[in-house]
Amino acid sequence: MRYRLLSAVTLAAMASGSVAAQDPGAAAGAIIGSAPFKQASAVMQADQDRFVRELIALTEIPSPPFKEQRRAEAFLGMLRQSGLSDVEIDSEGNVIGLRKGTGAGLVVVNAHLDTVFPEGTDVRVKRQGTRLMAPGVGDDTRGLTLILALIRAMDAAKIRTVSDILFVGNVGEEGEGDLRGIKYLLTKGKYKGRVTQMIAIDGTESSVITRGGVGSKRYRVTFKGPGGHSYGAFGLVNPAFAMGDAIARFSRLQVPASPKTTFNVGAVRGGTSVNAIPSEVSMDVDMRSVSCGELKKIDAAFLALVRDAVDAENKTRSTREGSIAAEPKVIGERPCGETPSTAPIVRRAGAVVSAFGQTPAFESSSTDANIPMSLGIPAITIGRGGPGGRQHSPDEWTEIDPKLNLQGEQIALAIILGVAGMAQA
Amino acid sequence: MRYRLLSAVTLAAMASGSVAAQDPGAAAGAIIGSAPFKQASAVMQADQDRFVRELIALTEIPSPPFKEQRRAEAFLGMLRQSGLSDVEIDSEGNVIGLRKGTGAGLVVVNAHLDTVFPEGTDVRVKRQGTRLMAPGVGDDTRGLTLILALIRAMDAAKIRTVSDILFVGNVGEEGEGDLRGIKYLLTKGKYKGRVTQMIAIDGTESSVITRGGVGSKRYRVTFKGPGGHSYGAFGLVNPAFAMGDAIARFSRLQVPASPKTTFNVGAVRGGTSVNAIPSEVSMDVDMRSVSCGELKKIDAAFLALVRDAVDAENKTRSTREGSIAAEPKVIGERPCGETPSTAPIVRRAGAVVSAFGQTPAFESSSTDANIPMSLGIPAITIGRGGPGGRQHSPDEWTEIDPKLNLQGEQIALAIILGVAGMAQA
Repeated sequence: MRYRLLSAVTLAAMASGSVAAQDPGAAAGAIIGSAPFKQASAVMQADQDRFVRELIALTEIPSPPFKEQRRAEAFLGMLRQSGLSDVEIDSEGNVIGLRKGTGAGLVVVNAHLDTVFPEGTDVRVKRQGTRLMAPGVGDDTRGLTLILALIRAMDAAKIRTVSDILFVGNVGEEGEGDLRGIKYLLTKGKYKGRVTQMIAIDGTESSVITRGGVGSKRYRVTFKGPGGHSYGAFGLVNPAFAMGDAIARFSRLQVPASPKTTFNVGAVRGGTSVNAIPSEVSMDVDMRSVSCGELKKIDAAFLALVRDAVDAENKTRSTREGSIAAEPKVIGERPCGETPSTAPIVRRAGAVVSAFGQTPAFESSSTDANIPMSLGIPAITIGRGGPGGRQHSPDEWTEIDPKLNLQGEQIALAIILGVAGMAQA
Repeated sequence: MRYRLLSAVTLAAMASGSVAAQDPGAAAGAIIGSAPFKQASAVMQADQDRFVRELIALTEIPSPPFKEQRRAEAFLGMLRQSGLSDVEIDSEGNVIGLRKGTGAGLVVVNAHLDTVFPEGTDVRVKRQGTRLMAPGVGDDTRGLTLILALIRAMDAAKIRTVSDILFVGNVGEEGEGDLRGIKYLLTKGKYKGRVTQMIAIDGTESSVITRGGVGSKRYRVTFKGPGGHSYGAFGLVNPAFAMGDAIARFSRLQVPASPKTTFNVGAVRGGTSVNAIPSEVSMDVDMRSVSCGELKKIDAAFLALVRDAVDAENKTRSTREGSIAAEPKVIGERPCGETPSTAPIVRRAGAVVSAFGQTPAFESSSTDANIPMSLGIPAITIGRGGPGGRQHSPDEWTEIDPKLNLQGEQIALAIILGVAGMAQA
């Protein structure tokens, strides 16, 4: 079968990435106005009940960080039922399935399998009118369900894209998962080196396009010393004193409000008894910045102040039984990155949002898209297709009003088609 | 029955407390040289096997802090078998039994029931030659066993004292027990207000007489704040920063080497996630001093610096969602105190040690004797009757060589008789 371009000029340029000279608004209009897109929209509209059913089913399969396997297997089955062939689970645990295009390029479209909620969380879905409520129902289970609906609509409307699309339900987006799923996909998996663009589905508002990846660096710093009796061994170095000094120095760091840069001590622990000098204490530290340069600066400043605090304690008290040493262990690293506002993927996505009468907002966040951004692969994060709120809390909710849902689905589909290039039989 | 004084001049003076003008050395010599003391010594010598049997039996009954009941009941039974009548367990859990004297005064002779070891510790006694090894075998189970042996010897030798002696196996000496047993005994129990002197049996060396009570003050300070997302809510006050600042200030306090004064941060905890500003963190702090004045000074300085650190954090960052508050909760308070070197109880005990050819060492420590000292009741802590080591560790051991044990028992008995006054039928 041979595919002709929907609009020979526009779409060939879009797929080739040389669209800078083109009008993204016109391209978006062409996609949205096309017969296949209208047909896909009708399919999605008729598909609402199944969408809700699948959303509930997936939400009720717990998927804590590092324990995404059950949900991965369920999603694998649903992807196959939705018409995607060549679906598999890779070595990291990502569900991946390729939808072949007609030309060049490989666009990843992903949603993450994991939620922030630990094992034992009650994930049963409650329904109030057009709201579904459950931990994880929005973030990012709705993203997974949206992928299923989009594939069915594209197949039913016989939509082909120029670039291949790799649909991914990935592991490890939240917290200590540390973006491991997408890291693996782009730097180790079988598609390593072949991905040309990436669209992460992981936002609440369809009008928001995330093109800045807030980078983060996380440490668990362990301070060790000889320990001893609080009275009998008084005068020996105390790792809690070194850590307290480090925290005090850290708290005095000056960071710019813009580019937004933040730091946090999120947890402390250590010591066994009030009347013993601890032999070990530790703290968990989080630093983030919209700017790669600022993140590097605060990272270096933090490591230096930890060294200074340790040195000061070793100079202040006796090291005759041993000295204090600090071991900063990286427990999280989300590379920062940015897709330029002029990049075709950003301009096309913005044009689609505008074409639906909304004002696109370009923001920075920390999502799976950080990884491609840091690797120089143009990437954005877009909405899951419906409003929602209270993410990361047990009161999380997502709106499934059919009209709103359809518009969210349409925006996502149009962005994907704009980025991957729409071809037609 | 009427009792005549062993040495009318010496012992009447000793019991009445007006011994300052007397020669404690002569008094000690008179006791040790007396026929009843020699008879008691012979009884103790013959009693070695039972002493060891009882020491092993009591050691193998676990007695963690706040869980002394099983051992208390066993000790109650043994006290009765050893000849003490009117034995009971008071409302705090102390085993108490009165041995009537012929005259005035009430001397408490105590050892503590509790060990530092938690439930589940293997407390089976191992024997290597003349060493017994087990957690708690010395501290203070040997003190309990010594009390049993002393009562049997006094009874067999028909020794009567001038003052009543209240033998006590008390709860709550170790750690968070916070001296609750003796606190209750002296300030709430049925003998409240009647105790005139106290001898705590809780030391390793028979030559060491503890006459200084190292006071301690312990806090768990909880720092609370509004919490929030490490990135989204950055700029809000962080209780970990306030606590770190407090620790840093604390670590810079200057304390005298003499009178020895110490401070410690023994444990820290709090926070739930690296990417959340904690809503609560806490630390456990221990301060001690040989000097009541210095303990008060460091206590006040500590509370002030906690306030300063909280104020500084509330001024440095935003309190729009709430401010930081610190709650210092007293988790331990051992009052300091001292029995003067000129007090009869100290001079008599020292003279007994000298009479056995050893050089008495007068020290400060933190024991049950802190309580009477703080109340102005003359008190000392003496040895358990045998060398030992590694107290508070699983490798604890105590020496039961019969000759060494007998001498330890003799020193303890002579000190008790010197303090309570020895009368004879």
